[in-house]
Amino acid sequence: MILRDPVHGLVSFESEEAEIVPALLETKEIQRLRRIRQLGLTCLAYPGAEHTRFAHAVGAAFVMTRLVNRLRQIHDQLPFWQRVTTERARDAIAAALLHDVGHGALSHLFEEALPDGPPHEEWTRRIVLDPKSEIHAVLAKVDSTLPSRVADLVRGRHQLTFLARAVSGTFDVDRCDYLLRDAYSTGVGYGNFDLDWLLRSFRFGVPENENVAPPLAIDGAKGLPAIESFILARLFMFQQVYFHKASRASEFMLSRILGRARQNVLDGSPVDDLPKAIASIAQTGDAQLGDYLDVDDGVLWGAIATWRSAKDPVLADLCRRLYQRSLFKTYELYGPALAPERRQLALERAREVAKRAGLDPDVYVGLDEASDVPFDDAEEPLTVIFPRGQPRKPGDVSFLLGRLRGERLERVRLVFAPELRDGIIEAVGE
Amino acid sequence: MILRDPVHGLVSFESEEAEIVPALLETKEIQRLRRIRQLGLTCLAYPGAEHTRFAHAVGAAFVMTRLVNRLRQIHDQLPFWQRVTTERARDAIAAALLHDVGHGALSHLFEEALPDGPPHEEWTRRIVLDPKSEIHAVLAKVDSTLPSRVADLVRGRHQLTFLARAVSGTFDVDRCDYLLRDAYSTGVGYGNFDLDWLLRSFRFGVPENENVAPPLAIDGAKGLPAIESFILARLFMFQQVYFHKASRASEFMLSRILGRARQNVLDGSPVDDLPKAIASIAQTGDAQLGDYLDVDDGVLWGAIATWRSAKDPVLADLCRRLYQRSLFKTYELYGPALAPERRQLALERAREVAKRAGLDPDVYVGLDEASDVPFDDAEEPLTVIFPRGQPRKPGDVSFLLGRLRGERLERVRLVFAPELRDGIIEAVGE
Amino acid sequence: MILRDPVHGLVSFESEEAEIVPALLETKEIQRLRRIRQLGLTCLAYPGAEHTRFAHAVGAAFVMTRLVNRLRQIHDQLPFWQRVTTERARDAIAAALLHDVGHGALSHLFEEALPDGPPHEEWTRRIVLDPKSEIHAVLAKVDSTLPSRVADLVRGRHQLTFLARAVSGTFDVDRCDYLLRDAYSTGVGYGNFDLDWLLRSFRFGVPENENVAPPLAIDGAKGLPAIESFILARLFMFQQVYFHKASRASEFMLSRILGRARQNVLDGSPVDDLPKAIASIAQTGDAQLGDYLDVDDGVLWGAIATWRSAKDPVLADLCRRLYQRSLFKTYELYGPALAPERRQLALERAREVAKRAGLDPDVYVGLDEASDVPFDDAEEPLTVIFPRGQPRKPGDVSFLLGRLRGERLERVRLVFAPELRDGIIEAVGE
Amino acid sequence: MILRDPVHGLVSFESEEAEIVPALLETKEIQRLRRIRQLGLTCLAYPGAEHTRFAHAVGAAFVMTRLVNRLRQIHDQLPFWQRVTTERARDAIAAALLHDVGHGALSHLFEEALPDGPPHEEWTRRIVLDPKSEIHAVLAKVDSTLPSRVADLVRGRHQLTFLARAVSGTFDVDRCDYLLRDAYSTGVGYGNFDLDWLLRSFRFGVPENENVAPPLAIDGAKGLPAIESFILARLFMFQQVYFHKASRASEFMLSRILGRARQNVLDGSPVDDLPKAIASIAQTGDAQLGDYLDVDDGVLWGAIATWRSAKDPVLADLCRRLYQRSLFKTYELYGPALAPERRQLALERAREVAKRAGLDPDVYVGLDEASDVPFDDAEEPLTVIFPRGQPRKPGDVSFLLGRLRGERLERVRLVFAPELRDGIIEAVGE
Repeated sequence: MILRDPVHGLVSFESEEAEIVPALLETKEIQRLRRIRQLGLTCLAYPGAEHTRFAHAVGAAFVMTRLVNRLRQIHDQLPFWQRVTTERARDAIAAALLHDVGHGALSHLFEEALPDGPPHEEWTRRIVLDPKSEIHAVLAKVDSTLPSRVADLVRGRHQLTFLARAVSGTFDVDRCDYLLRDAYSTGVGYGNFDLDWLLRSFRFGVPENENVAPPLAIDGAKGLPAIESFILARLFMFQQVYFHKASRASEFMLSRILGRARQNVLDGSPVDDLPKAIASIAQTGDAQLGDYLDVDDGVLWGAIATWRSAKDPVLADLCRRLYQRSLFKTYELYGPALAPERRQLALERAREVAKRAGLDPDVYVGLDEASDVPFDDAEEPLTVIFPRGQPRKPGDVSFLLGRLRGERLERVRLVFAPELRDGIIEAVGE
Repeated sequence: MILRDPVHGLVSFESEEAEIVPALLETKEIQRLRRIRQLGLTCLAYPGAEHTRFAHAVGAAFVMTRLVNRLRQIHDQLPFWQRVTTERARDAIAAALLHDVGHGALSHLFEEALPDGPPHEEWTRRIVLDPKSEIHAVLAKVDSTLPSRVADLVRGRHQLTFLARAVSGTFDVDRCDYLLRDAYSTGVGYGNFDLDWLLRSFRFGVPENENVAPPLAIDGAKGLPAIESFILARLFMFQQVYFHKASRASEFMLSRILGRARQNVLDGSPVDDLPKAIASIAQTGDAQLGDYLDVDDGVLWGAIATWRSAKDPVLADLCRRLYQRSLFKTYELYGPALAPERRQLALERAREVAKRAGLDPDVYVGLDEASDVPFDDAEEPLTVIFPRGQPRKPGDVSFLLGRLRGERLERVRLVFAPELRDGIIEAVGE
Repeated sequence: MILRDPVHGLVSFESEEAEIVPALLETKEIQRLRRIRQLGLTCLAYPGAEHTRFAHAVGAAFVMTRLVNRLRQIHDQLPFWQRVTTERARDAIAAALLHDVGHGALSHLFEEALPDGPPHEEWTRRIVLDPKSEIHAVLAKVDSTLPSRVADLVRGRHQLTFLARAVSGTFDVDRCDYLLRDAYSTGVGYGNFDLDWLLRSFRFGVPENENVAPPLAIDGAKGLPAIESFILARLFMFQQVYFHKASRASEFMLSRILGRARQNVLDGSPVDDLPKAIASIAQTGDAQLGDYLDVDDGVLWGAIATWRSAKDPVLADLCRRLYQRSLFKTYELYGPALAPERRQLALERAREVAKRAGLDPDVYVGLDEASDVPFDDAEEPLTVIFPRGQPRKPGDVSFLLGRLRGERLERVRLVFAPELRDGIIEAVGE
Repeated sequence: MILRDPVHGLVSFESEEAEIVPALLETKEIQRLRRIRQLGLTCLAYPGAEHTRFAHAVGAAFVMTRLVNRLRQIHDQLPFWQRVTTERARDAIAAALLHDVGHGALSHLFEEALPDGPPHEEWTRRIVLDPKSEIHAVLAKVDSTLPSRVADLVRGRHQLTFLARAVSGTFDVDRCDYLLRDAYSTGVGYGNFDLDWLLRSFRFGVPENENVAPPLAIDGAKGLPAIESFILARLFMFQQVYFHKASRASEFMLSRILGRARQNVLDGSPVDDLPKAIASIAQTGDAQLGDYLDVDDGVLWGAIATWRSAKDPVLADLCRRLYQRSLFKTYELYGPALAPERRQLALERAREVAKRAGLDPDVYVGLDEASDVPFDDAEEPLTVIFPRGQPRKPGDVSFLLGRLRGERLERVRLVFAPELRDGIIEAVGE
C-alpha cells in the first residue's frame, strides 16, 4: 500500500511488519477518523486547518516505520533480546496508528466539554480491547494477545522503554506527525522541524542496569539542533495556534453549548437531535461504545444546527453564534495582572458587567487559562551522548534549552460575548 | 483583515476595495462553505484532500486582489474609462469570493447526482440576488445594483472583457487558486505553477476595435513558461487527482445512492433523515433556497449513516459500503477498446456478470467516461505579444502548447462492485 | 560521513559499499571540482546559478545509493547472478561520483571552445586510469581492476545493462541530480520532478533473452507521472536555462576568447598568464593531465582579467566585455526564418553589418543553433509495465509523451556585439 | 529589470526609484562581487554554500524595495517631511545594494587575516566616494551629493533613523537577505524566518520628541513571532554554520597562510604571484583601491595554488593542506574548561605538544574563540506596540526573547594540525 501524503510525501506500508496497517485502515473505527478534524474548531481561526485525525493517524504510523528503521541501524550494540523484532515493530506501528483512535468529535474538545464521561484514552482502550470492534478483530486475528499488547503500548507500557516512549513520550511519533501536519495545514511555518535529522540523531544511551534496555539518546555532535528545533516548533505552535484567541474562544463556546445540552437532559427536557452518547454521558457518566463512535464532527455540527431553534433560549443563542462564527471576544491579562487573586477579580468584574447586561455570567463570561511547559528535562530520560564523557541532560549542553528549561508559557484571557466588550475593558482595563 | 493561508502565505483584505470581503465572510452563506469539501470524495483517495470551499473562496478573492494590482501596473495604455476603478475592483473581488457559493454538498457531486435540480450556477445566482440572503444584504447595502453586477460577473459578463475572464476564463482566479490548493492538500507536487510569474506576465493585447477594452495577453519574452506550466499543472491534476479511479468510483457510488433515495421518494416510500431539499428536487425539480443551504457534507454523511439501515436493501448496502470506504473497483479501457461500440459491448458484458451474480446492473455496474481538453486556443482570446510583430496564438509559439492543442485526454473505465471483479475481467479482458 | 545538502537534505555515505565515497572526496581531482561551476557562465543570467560540480558529483553518488536500494527491493525476481552485490553497488556509486570528473573549467564550455583537445569523457577516463592520479590510487587500493571497471561504467558499459544505464541513460543519476540542483540554484521551479516517486516506480522489465539482465521498466499504474514530469522538467530547463539567451551569448564570447588566445599561440605571440594546458592543446591537440587539472574557473577568469590588457586588441576587447558582463545581444529566428538557407542569409547580412562597422565578423557576429529532442523512445529500452499485457513504450501510453515523442526543440539566434543591434535588426528583421 | 532569484522568487527593479539598480549592477565594482563567495570557506563544510556576494547584494536591495513599500503603507501618521520620498527610497535602495561592496576576497576572511589593512567598511566608503570608481560615476550622475548620502546611509547615518537602521540595524535588509540566502544554500532549514510577516508587522513607534522621526516598532498583536523567529534563525545559523568547526578551522588556516605571506614580504622574500594589494598592506597598512579590487576568490585561490611550492616550507605546507581540504581539527572546551585561565592552560599544553612534534606552535595550534549575543534589547530602539498601553521592549513581552536577552553564545576550541590530535586530547582532555 502506497499513499501520497502532503507532509511526508510518498508513504508506504509494504513490509511484512507494516501489512497490518492496510487491514486496520479498513475498519470502521479508523474510517470514522475521516470525519473528525484534528484541530477541532481551529479552522475558525486558520482556514486551512481542516485536516482530519485519519491523515494524522496514517502519518504517525509512517513515522513509526521510519523510527523502527533507525532503531535497527543502531541496535547492533544491544543484546539480541532487546532488538526490534518484526513482531515488536508490528506492535509499535499498530500502536502508532491507533494511539488516538478513541478521540471524540472535534478531537479533544468533546471530552473537555463533557468531563463526566470517560477520557479519550479510555475510549481508545475500549476500542482496542472490545471483542466486538473491527479493530480488535484485525488485531486478534494476528495473535490473540495483540490487542492487549497494543493497548499497553498506547499507554506507554512496554518492556523496551525506548519503544514505549516512541509511542508516548517527549519526542514520540504522535508529536512528530502532528507538529508537521498542523504547521502544514495552518501555514504557520514556524512549526516545522527537521524530522530526517531528528531520526538520524537517535542513539542508544546507557541503561540503568544490565537487565533493562537502554533509553534513547541524542548524538551530541550532530543532534542538538534537531531536538532544539523540535521543542521550538512545538512552542511556536502553542503560541500561534493551540493558544490562539479565536480557537480558545470558540472552544469555550462549545463547552458551554454541550454543558447546556447536558443540563437540559438532567432537567428532563432533552433537546432534539441529541446524540445518544451525549445523553447517556450526561445521565450516567458513560456511554455505549457504538453510540460514542456514532458521534463525529458532522453529527455534532448537525446537532448545533438543530439547536439554533431549541426551546432553551441560551442554548439556541450560543448555537446560532457558533454556527455562524460570531465568536466570543477575549481580553488577555499580562504581567502583574496574572497574579491569581487579580485574575479572579477580573473575572468577577466581568461577570458583573454581564449581569448588568442581563446575560447569564456562567455562560457569557469566563476565564480561560492556557499553559504549557515547552521543555523540561527533570523527568526526561533522553540524554545527549558525546564521543567522550558521560551522557548529559539536553538543558545542560544546549544554549537554547538551558534557557527554556522548566519555564512555563501561559496565556490567560477573559472570554465574553462581543456585546460586553466595552463594558469589560472599562471594568478591568488598566 | 489579515489571514494566514498555507497556499498564499499572508493574505490581507485591507484596501478600500477589499473591505467587502470581511463583511461577506460573516454571512451564513459563506460560512456554510466551511462545511463543504472542495474535492468532495477525493479524500477517500488522497487523505490530505480535506480542504473546504471556504478556504478556496478566500484564496480566489485574494488572487483577484493581486490580479487587480497587476492590471493597474499596466493600464496606463488604456483610456481612463477602461481602467480598473476602485468600484470595479471591489465588484471583481466580490465576484471572485462568491463565484461558487452555490455549490451543494460535496461540491459538484450533489448536482451531478441529482441532475433534475438546478445547477450550482443557478444556486449561486439565487444566493446573490435573493433579497433574503445575507450576501444580498451585504452587497445591496453598498449599492442596490451591486448584486446584479456581481451575478453578471460570476457568469462572465462585464463590459471589460478582461475583467469578466478574470472571474471566468482559461486563466481565471478560480483555477489559479484551486490548482495550487488542490496540489498543496493532496501532495501532488505536479500541480504547482508559478503564480507570481503568471501575474507578472500579463499585458494588454490588441482590442477588436476602439470601442472595446483589449483582451489580456502574455508577454512573449518572459511569460510563455508561466502559461505552459499552468496548463501542465491542470493536466497533471486531471490525470492524477480529478480522474483518479478511487475518486471516480466513490462518486459513482454516491450518484447511485442519491438516485436510489430519489427513487424511494418517487415511489412514495421516502427514507429517514432525508434532507428536505433532496426530497423536493426529486419531486419537483427544484427546492427552497433555505432548504438547499441546509445540506452540507455533514448532513449528507449523516443521511448516509442513517440509510445504512434503510428498508431498501440496495440503498442500505451502498451506504454501508461508502460509509466504510469499501469502494467499487474499476477496469480501464485502453487503445482500440475505447471505440464507442466496444465500450458499450464491455458495459453489456459487465452487466451480464452482475445479473448472473444476482446484483442489479443499474446500480452495481457502470461505464465511467471522464474527459478533458487540456488546452485549446481555437476559442481562447488570450494572445502572446512580442516586441515586434502581431499578437500570436499560444499554440503557435509554444513548443509544448503547440503539441497539446486540441488534444483530448480521456479515461474510460468500467466501475463495479468488488465481488464482480474476476468475472468482469474474464468477460471483457483481452 | 553525513552531509547537509540543500537538494537532497541529509546525505549519508555510511554503508560498506558507500565507504569509498569519503576516500574519493579527499583526492585532489575531486576537490578541484569545488572550483568549477556546474553551469559555467549561466550565473551571468541567473545570479543563483553558482553551484559547483563538486556538489553535483556528491549528489549524483547519493542518488545512486538510493537507486541501488530500490533495485534491491525489487531484485528478488532476478537470478542471483544478476543482483546488485555489495561490490557492484560500490562500483556504481564510485562511477556516479566520478562520471564527470574530467570536465574542464566552466564545465562543458572549455572543450567546446577548444575543440582540438580531448573531450571531457577522455579526461575522465585518463583521471580514473592514470596510475599517478589520487583517484586511481584510491580505487586500485580496493581492487586492482576497479579503475577499469569504473571507467567502463562511466562510458555506460556493464554486464548488467540496467546498472550501466543508471550511470549513463535517459533517467540516469547524473540527470536526476543536475535537474534538481540546477532548478534549485536558479530558482526555476519548473525544473522539479518527484525523485522519490520516480525511484519507487522502477520495476524490472522483460529481458531480451535468458542470458541477459532485464532492462529497467516503469510501473504503469503508478509511475507514468514520474517520468512525464522528469521529461518536462528537463524540457523546461532547456527552454529557460540551458538555452537562455544571455547564457548562450556569454558562451559564444568565451569561445571567441579562447579561440583568439589559441590563434595567438599558433601565431607565435602567446598571451601572458596563458595556462599551460591551453597552450599545449592549441599547439598539439592535447595536454598533460596535471596541466589540464590546473585549469579551473578561477584560473580562467584570472587569465581573462589579465588579457583585458593583451596586445591583441580584439582579445583585450572581448575580455573586457565578458569580465564586466557587457554581453553580446541576440536576435532569435522564428517560423519560416528557421529554414537553413534563411539562417545563412541572416548570418551573412549580419556579418555585412559588422564589416561596415569595422568589426571582425568572425568574432563579433555568429549564428547560435541550440537544439534538443526532449523525448524519444525509439531507442529507449525503458518500457512501461502493466498488471496485464505486454510491456509498452512510454510514448504509447502517456498522453503527454505521445505528443512530444521525437519532436525537436530548437532555438536559433544571431549573436552580436550590442553596438550592431540596430543595424542587424534592420538588415534581417521582418 | 526582472530577475529570477531562488530566495525571493521574482525580483524586479522597475519603479522610478529602483532604476538605479540596473545602472549600478553594470559597474565593475559590483560585477566583482560575482567572484567573491558570501560565506568564504564555509563551502568546505557545506557543499552548497557556494553563493556569492553579488546575489546577496541584489537580494538586499530587493528587500529594501519591499520595506519601502511597507513604510509607505503606514506613513500616513507621519508629518510629510518624515515620509519616504522617491529620492529617499532611491538612496536607501542604492545603500542596500552597496552596503558591503568593499568586502575582500572570501568575504570577511580577508580583513581578519590582514588586520593591518583597512576594514571592509572603509573600502566600501572609498568605492562609493572615489571619483574614479564606476559606482561613484553612476551615483554622481544622478546627483552630485548622492555618493556621500549613500556612504552615510551605509554607516547607519540618516536624518530618518528608521531608514538608517533599515540599512544597518538589528533587523536590517542585509540580515534579512543573508539569513534566508545562507539557509537556502547550505540547506540548514532552521535559518528560515517569515519575511512577509516581518515586513507586515512593522509599525511606527513613538518618537523621542516632535522634531525627530519615530523609530520602527512591531505590532504586538501579530508581529512577535516574526521577530522571535528572526532572532532564532540567526542563532541557529551561528550555531550550525557560522561557528561550524570545519569553517572555523579552515579560516584559521587561511589567516596563518596570509600571515605567513605577509611575514615573507616583511622579511624581504616575497612569494610568487603575490597580489599587489596584499604586499602593499603588509608593508604600508594600506593599498590602492584598484589593486584591492583586483583580488577576488579566484585570485586568492590561484595564489594558494602557486604557494604550494613556495620556498617557505611552512607556507607551502599550509597551502597544500587547504588547497586539498586537509583541514585542521578542533577540540571544543565545555563548562568549567571555559574559564579564561583554563583556556590559556589548554592552549599552552597544546603548544607544547606541537613543539615536541617539531611543528611551529604559532602556526599549527591556536585557540579559536567565537561568540555572539543572539538578542539584546538594552540598546535596541525597536519596541512592541499594543492597542493599549506604552510601547514595550521585545524581551518584556516575548516568552522566548525574555529568556535569551543578553545571553552570550560561545564556542571555544583548540585548533590544530590533525597529526597532533591524539597528543592534544591526551594533554588537555578530561
